[in-house]
Amino acid sequence: MKKVSVALTGAGGQIAYHLIYSISKGEVFGFDTQVDLRLVDIPEVLPKIEGLVMELEDSRLTLLSSVSIHSDQQLDQAFQSIDFAFLVGAFPRLAGMERKDLLEKNGLIFKTQGEALGAYAKPSVQTLVVGNPCNTNCLIALSHAKNIPSNQFYAMTLLDEFRASYQLAKMCQVPVVDITDLYIYGNHSATQFPDFTNARVKDQPIISVLDQSGLETTFVPMIQQRGAAVIKARGSSSAASAARSAAETAHKIWSQSSTPFSVAVVSSGCYDAPDGIVVSAPYYFKDGKGRVYDRFDHDATAKAMIEKSYQELLQEREAVIALGFLDE
Amino acid sequence: MKKVSVALTGAGGQIAYHLIYSISKGEVFGFDTQVDLRLVDIPEVLPKIEGLVMELEDSRLTLLSSVSIHSDQQLDQAFQSIDFAFLVGAFPRLAGMERKDLLEKNGLIFKTQGEALGAYAKPSVQTLVVGNPCNTNCLIALSHAKNIPSNQFYAMTLLDEFRASYQLAKMCQVPVVDITDLYIYGNHSATQFPDFTNARVKDQPIISVLDQSGLETTFVPMIQQRGAAVIKARGSSSAASAARSAAETAHKIWSQSSTPFSVAVVSSGCYDAPDGIVVSAPYYFKDGKGRVYDRFDHDATAKAMIEKSYQELLQEREAVIALGFLDE
Repeated sequence: MKKVSVALTGAGGQIAYHLIYSISKGEVFGFDTQVDLRLVDIPEVLPKIEGLVMELEDSRLTLLSSVSIHSDQQLDQAFQSIDFAFLVGAFPRLAGMERKDLLEKNGLIFKTQGEALGAYAKPSVQTLVVGNPCNTNCLIALSHAKNIPSNQFYAMTLLDEFRASYQLAKMCQVPVVDITDLYIYGNHSATQFPDFTNARVKDQPIISVLDQSGLETTFVPMIQQRGAAVIKARGSSSAASAARSAAETAHKIWSQSSTPFSVAVVSSGCYDAPDGIVVSAPYYFKDGKGRVYDRFDHDATAKAMIEKSYQELLQEREAVIALGFLDE
Repeated sequence: MKKVSVALTGAGGQIAYHLIYSISKGEVFGFDTQVDLRLVDIPEVLPKIEGLVMELEDSRLTLLSSVSIHSDQQLDQAFQSIDFAFLVGAFPRLAGMERKDLLEKNGLIFKTQGEALGAYAKPSVQTLVVGNPCNTNCLIALSHAKNIPSNQFYAMTLLDEFRASYQLAKMCQVPVVDITDLYIYGNHSATQFPDFTNARVKDQPIISVLDQSGLETTFVPMIQQRGAAVIKARGSSSAASAARSAAETAHKIWSQSSTPFSVAVVSSGCYDAPDGIVVSAPYYFKDGKGRVYDRFDHDATAKAMIEKSYQELLQEREAVIALGFLDE
């Protein structure tokens, strides 16, 4: 049987509590692949993770061949020869925290983890960053991971695509599978652009069915603010849905999906993205190589929205450079 | 495509947060079956469940054809024509609560739900009780569900079987799939009997490999107390593992598993179980009909342990009769 070694940070959190089960049930790496799982979190959380491991033991997960627990000070063990890393843990934005404080806290976390990936993981390791701000956290990690190609680092925007697909399906009163060609551009943030201009419903352009100005003024902000709306309703941030998207993203990366999906990768210049930032776009694999699906056209309005999100990412990059976590 | 209508109580809780995803992904009713899901909880929790429904919308669950939210005062809608009910919600044992208070709180809940199942669900509805004390809650529900055969009610003990299998596998240093013929008898409580005396490892009797008195004094109490140990480690009760077992149990019921599994059903007299209680034993389906697998022998020690658990169930029954939730 095949075997994969996987590390997951933020293992004591709510996203991990769901994601670990998806991984252990075979949904990510396949039902023919055993998983050696390394759970990582800050020292204070480790006793609770021991309880989670007891639950895993009690769950008859026959693909889970081994589980170990590591503090974030033991990345040499946690990342040793791993094939895949889920970087889920991030410092949360607490009340009263400045944006700069947030970038500083996370800059240190993702610099350290990037360095450890470069030092200990397999050179073929694939890394999915879920912890926010995920694009910039991903940029920091890949910049410090020596000997690992930058295009093996990904930041998650598939949750945004799922959110957008559902809302368009609802507006068109069709099942979600009837919505196609809908992808997220830019940053996983309130500036993201869910590109309704190329989206199709039952192979017809959405903009031939729904009013374009309504989509701009209602649909786009709804997707941009969906995370906040979930927090308001649940009293805590998206967990199960984030885990679902993370599992699907990792599965698409691992299985080299030939169908495009939304994910953020280091800019290759497609869709006029500036160099040196991690941007979302449709992405797919062909002949064993991942690449941006670059066949969509954008009108001036769409281009302006995408550009706005690029600008935000450039600002995040500048802030992180000023904090010393990236070279210019 | 096939379709099933499913109600789930305690929908705002941690077990439900996992179980709902298993149901919606097709793990319970099959990957060819759409699910119409009814989420039930106390009124105070419903706003939070709206957040959960937003997450379901955002999760691209293509088998989930509809979701609705109901208060526990609207069981006429929630249980209307359902095919399957997960009764997960129960009143928790709070600090300082007497056992009688707990039985009283839950007696009312499960009497009401049993009556509503009888009044509104399909006569073919299958019900799995997860909320504790699950055996007696199940007994109350089935006793009040007019027109629904008693053998369509089940209480969950598969989690105990999973726990026991893992520990024996660990002791024998084999994968968990090498442990067979291991089943739970009696109550889902600290009196349960995980029957190591018939269990086999690689088709050899466990008691020919491990010391029997050690199994009695160490293994049995460990399984009986496992739930408490998880609570101590996690700071909260088993959720993901309970959901995993609930999904597996429901799948075995729905697909009419021909392989025995641990589950509690109303006593048929097998293994000397007294009438009128809901007891765990190995259970399987043959020719479309569920039945206790009655081919195991028990020595005097095993019989005494099983009898002790029966006695506890009889006491719970007496207490519930005294409270007016059951006829004598």
